[in-house]
Amino acid sequence: MPTFTASARSTSPSRVDVDVRQFTFVVDEPPSLGGTDLGPNPVELLLASLLGCLNVVVHLVAQERAVHVRSLHLTAEGDLDPALLFGYDIGTRAGFSGIRVHAAIDVDGSEAQARDILAEAQRRCPVGDNLLHRTPLTVAVATPALLAGAAA
Amino acid sequence: MPTFTASARSTSPSRVDVDVRQFTFVVDEPPSLGGTDLGPNPVELLLASLLGCLNVVVHLVAQERAVHVRSLHLTAEGDLDPALLFGYDIGTRAGFSGIRVHAAIDVDGSEAQARDILAEAQRRCPVGDNLLHRTPLTVAVATPALLAGAAA
Repeated sequence: MPTFTASARSTSPSRVDVDVRQFTFVVDEPPSLGGTDLGPNPVELLLASLLGCLNVVVHLVAQERAVHVRSLHLTAEGDLDPALLFGYDIGTRAGFSGIRVHAAIDVDGSEAQARDILAEAQRRCPVGDNLLHRTPLTVAVATPALLAGAAA
Repeated sequence: MPTFTASARSTSPSRVDVDVRQFTFVVDEPPSLGGTDLGPNPVELLLASLLGCLNVVVHLVAQERAVHVRSLHLTAEGDLDPALLFGYDIGTRAGFSGIRVHAAIDVDGSEAQARDILAEAQRRCPVGDNLLHRTPLTVAVATPALLAGAAA
């Protein structure tokens, strides 16, 4: 099964410099969230990831159905209460409580075909699936002491 | 509750040009997945989003505990079977079957403190939460015919 990878070096409490294959980019926070605003923030990047994924799958599905996509514009909005992020356990979740995507699509086909393509794309979109359904996530920690012990 | 937004214009079947506030960036696919390789792909961006988020929350939690983070390097790997993406319904999920994060952290504190900070950061990380737990996702579709009807 293919494995995808990203690595990140913390360059400040708000900023990482990310390496993905030959690409390097900055993820940061706006000043309102304590950052230096040198790149999109993590949750904005999550929305961008979803939109990039939907674009790919919409075109795949349309091609399968011999429908030409003339244009596609996507927007995503997500509401996020930062209470738990900042340590206030008031029963809210840490992440987006919900994400709304708006797809403006023009196809060489019917309105119904456009809707069907979007519905099937949502079902087969990897990022959409990882949001809609639980995804196992593990965090392994290595410290200098641990590494020294391993080397001893 | 704060709302975060991203918008994407499809510039090819594999590529979107994304706008997030003042930032514009390209999400694409490598040639092996039918793309033009002008940016990280959507699932790589999802991993980057998770790492950027963990960086922020690790530093928040460490600051609460008066622990200085000397350095933090994060990597994320995710396994993804593209069968369903490509339309083969063989019982696999569309997205990552699991994501593994490796955190190399050096703190001005004990090994146990470093582990506790990472555990608490995982619990309070918005992107981690959206992966670990189900996130409602809706896709609203607008077509020219629909827009013309609305304007009539």
